[in-house]
Amino acid sequence: MEQTKHVLTLLVDNKPGVLQRVVGLISRRGFNIESLSVGPTENPALSHITLVALGDQVAFEQIIKQLHKLVPVHKITDLSAGGAIVRELALFKVKAPADKRGEIIEICNIFRAKIADLGTDSLTIEITGDEGKLQGLEDLLRVYGIKEIVRTGKIAQARNHK
Amino acid sequence: MEQTKHVLTLLVDNKPGVLQRVVGLISRRGFNIESLSVGPTENPALSHITLVALGDQVAFEQIIKQLHKLVPVHKITDLSAGGAIVRELALFKVKAPADKRGEIIEICNIFRAKIADLGTDSLTIEITGDEGKLQGLEDLLRVYGIKEIVRTGKIAQARNHK
Repeated sequence: MEQTKHVLTLLVDNKPGVLQRVVGLISRRGFNIESLSVGPTENPALSHITLVALGDQVAFEQIIKQLHKLVPVHKITDLSAGGAIVRELALFKVKAPADKRGEIIEICNIFRAKIADLGTDSLTIEITGDEGKLQGLEDLLRVYGIKEIVRTGKIAQARNHK
Repeated sequence: MEQTKHVLTLLVDNKPGVLQRVVGLISRRGFNIESLSVGPTENPALSHITLVALGDQVAFEQIIKQLHKLVPVHKITDLSAGGAIVRELALFKVKAPADKRGEIIEICNIFRAKIADLGTDSLTIEITGDEGKLQGLEDLLRVYGIKEIVRTGKIAQARNHK
């Protein structure tokens, strides 16, 4: 069966156990969750989940049907087909001895990335963008030695003109 | 029992079911997960989880002990005490008729927020920062009418000079 990438956003109750039920339902179908973001919304009673998962189309459609039956799930949007703004945030901690700092900061400027923290021999860089932009910066920083990467997972929102 | 906010980062196997076990363990103890981010790391075999949960200190210590026993969990860092870089990304979709656009863009510039998308009567704004900064922008945008908020949940990294 062909494995495709699915992007889903859910509006759910902000209560203990809800996330577990959603994640459980998807994992039981053998989908590997590549990235997941859970955060607050404009309504304190609700949380917003964005998830990216790999699996086949038929199983994915079944998952959406079952998610609709979960009481704490209020709204499901399938953004797999595109037409969405997708963003991700990453922190890269890079080896940066004093004589390399200038070069690294130059790269950051081109990518409009920010310096989030500075140590005696390392820099922490903050970048926001789509997957391609983050990958581009990562490839360039790899030369200097990446000590740690932390990424938020993607968030997605339908475009305004849809 | 006093409820405190806990920030935890985990390095886990990038495999189906691992996230479910981690989320299950925390939810079963009655902790409400306020925000959760799962994303890739520099190693494709591993995923990075940052989670913020509310609960009491004793239960939290037990959770950390149990997480250490989960085979797919490789590293746990408790950043609850501070000394960490904490960042979050949000997309705000705001009502923005043509005659209000200028005002809203001015606010965005002050917050170093970016315009991610433009519709005939709405704007999508992208902002990165800590909780206080995001809340500050949200409060100002509320006046114009917020149609949708999507937030990544927090990511955290220990500071360089620790």
